Formats: sequence, C-alpha cells, structure tokens
Amino acid sequence: MVKKFKASTAITPATGLIEIFTGDGKGKTSAALGTVLRALGHGLRVHIVYFMKGDFPYGEQNMLSKLSNITFATFGYETFVDPAQVKEEEKKAARKALDASREAILSLNYDIVVLDEVNIAAAWKLIDVEDVIKLLQEKPEKVELILTGRYADPRLIELADLVTEMGKVKHPYDKGVLSRKGIEY
Amino acid sequence: MVKKFKASTAITPATGLIEIFTGDGKGKTSAALGTVLRALGHGLRVHIVYFMKGDFPYGEQNMLSKLSNITFATFGYETFVDPAQVKEEEKKAARKALDASREAILSLNYDIVVLDEVNIAAAWKLIDVEDVIKLLQEKPEKVELILTGRYADPRLIELADLVTEMGKVKHPYDKGVLSRKGIEY
Repeated sequence: MVKKFKASTAITPATGLIEIFTGDGKGKTSAALGTVLRALGHGLRVHIVYFMKGDFPYGEQNMLSKLSNITFATFGYETFVDPAQVKEEEKKAARKALDASREAILSLNYDIVVLDEVNIAAAWKLIDVEDVIKLLQEKPEKVELILTGRYADPRLIELADLVTEMGKVKHPYDKGVLSRKGIEY
Repeated sequence: MVKKFKASTAITPATGLIEIFTGDGKGKTSAALGTVLRALGHGLRVHIVYFMKGDFPYGEQNMLSKLSNITFATFGYETFVDPAQVKEEEKKAARKALDASREAILSLNYDIVVLDEVNIAAAWKLIDVEDVIKLLQEKPEKVELILTGRYADPRLIELADLVTEMGKVKHPYDKGVLSRKGIEY
C-alpha cells in the first residue's frame, strides 16, 4: 500500500487509537506484533498481555525478550479451552489478564498496550465483555490499544477506531498441513 | 486463536509455503513483520525485499537493522506511484526488486523471503505478473515466501498455500486521522 501522507503531515501518537484485528484468517497476532516492532523502532514503549497462551515458548516471546522497551505477561493455559465447557481456572486466569491489562493501561508507562486474544476470551465468556468495554472507555487518551482475536464483539468494534477483519481465503490446515514451529508459533 | 495442534505435532519449515496477505485493510505488512519476528525467535534466517518503499525511514527498518539473522533491501521511490501514469524509473526499480527477490530466494541463504508490496507492483504493472508466477514456481521447496500488498492477482492466490484477506471494517483515515509516526510507519 502506498502511503497517502508524507512524513511531514504525520501526527504523533498523542491520540492513541483503539485497533482491533479480528476474523478467522491468519495474521491477527502477527499484525499486532508487526505494529509493535515498528513502534519500538520509534522508541515507543509497549506492553503485551497474552490472554490465552500460557507459558508456551512461542518464538515471538523468545524474540521479544531480547528487545528493549517491551514487556509482556502471559496468562491462561497451554491446553485448549473448550468454549462449551469453560473451566473455573480458565476464567480466573482470563480475569487476571484483564486486571493486568487495566493496570498497564492506566499506569501510563506504555504508549501501546496489546491485549492478545482478548476478543475470544470475551466471546467465550472467560471474561465479561462489559468489563472490556469499561476498560476501553477509561483508556487514557494517549495510550494506543490493540485487541486481537476472532469473534470481536460488535460493541468493541463500535468503540474501536481501526478494525481489520482477517478473512481466510486459503489455509494450509485445510490441506492437512499442521502448525509449524518457527512460522505459526 | 487457540492452537489446534500441540507442539509435538508440529512439522519443521522444511516445507516452505507461499503466504499472501492482501486486501484493503490494515495489517498486511505488519502481519508479515510479526511472522518474521516469530521466525527470528526460532533462529530462522529472513530477507525482506521492499518493492515500493524507497529509503523512507520506516520504524520497522530502524528496528530490523538492530536484529540478527535478518536483512532487507528497499526499492522504489518515496513519492507515490500513480497507477494511471507509471513512470519508466518506477518500473525499473520494481524490476530490480524482482531480480533481487529471485536471487535471495534461489540462494538458499534464507528460510523466509518477504516480497513486500509485490502484489500491488504487479497489479499496477510495474512488473509483469507472469514473472512473479515464474518465481513462485521455481521457489526451492524449503523456502517460505510471503507476498504482501492489496490487489493480489488471482493466479498468485491460486499458487499460494495460505491467503489472508485483510478487510477494512473501520479505518481512522475515514475520520480524517492521518498516518502517524511510530504506529503506521
């Protein structure tokens, strides 16, 4: 995509937006990570809250640990949440993630806070979507928030400034290719 | 998104796929960058060819310069290509980018090669889409290719293994917010 505006017309991130990456296609968390990488290149401070990844050694976490100006916290379990049978411990972990997010956002220690998979945590009722809405509403103006995960609630989309729906046109899982270390995680 | 497969079922990137991020929504280059960051975390080697960015000091390039195992090359101009009036020098730059891509892909020096904005370069006829098709067809099996940019040609989509369409649900440009340093570039 060719940029429509030149650098001289850019505004600083004093007006932090709410961004959402949702949909069933690949690239939601990746797009958040790429945005983060770019922000770090400009010296911005970033915090990522992983709602549903446990302490699974994802490549991105290995990498993020080596970078400056970025911190992250992981919640949830390595096992797979069954939306039809959500466990109390899974809810508890997601609520902890939400509390941690709120603290990070209100601390003003970060220019960007990423709430990874928060959409699905709300959709599966691990947390109450009303609490996410409240969090978005009390966001300090200059903080940029990025929410990822499929099934973004329409009320979250309503509150967001920038929403991208990742649509799956083709996915190798459909052809029987499994998740590959180094590429998908 | 909850992973459907456990680490133990993962296959290595010996079977490099062709991924495309297209569509008019935000996050195409960001998703490629995030994928790259994750791959670097696993020690993979990455090369990015920017087809249409010139030497504009994007935050991501600042950041990528600091990381190991990743190199990139930029082509094209900082000014904005007018698809109705493509200049000879723009075509020349895009052809150089394609040659550089081919060299990088065939060198086997990289596990992943990103062709940033190649889709739009082909759509605007800066390069011949047939040449991109040829490149995809001669890709060594283990090399992962990531193509970004809107207007991906249907023949490229046909050849790809993983295609995500970034759909614009909401964009702040629509509300008059300009491109912001540290966030979009």
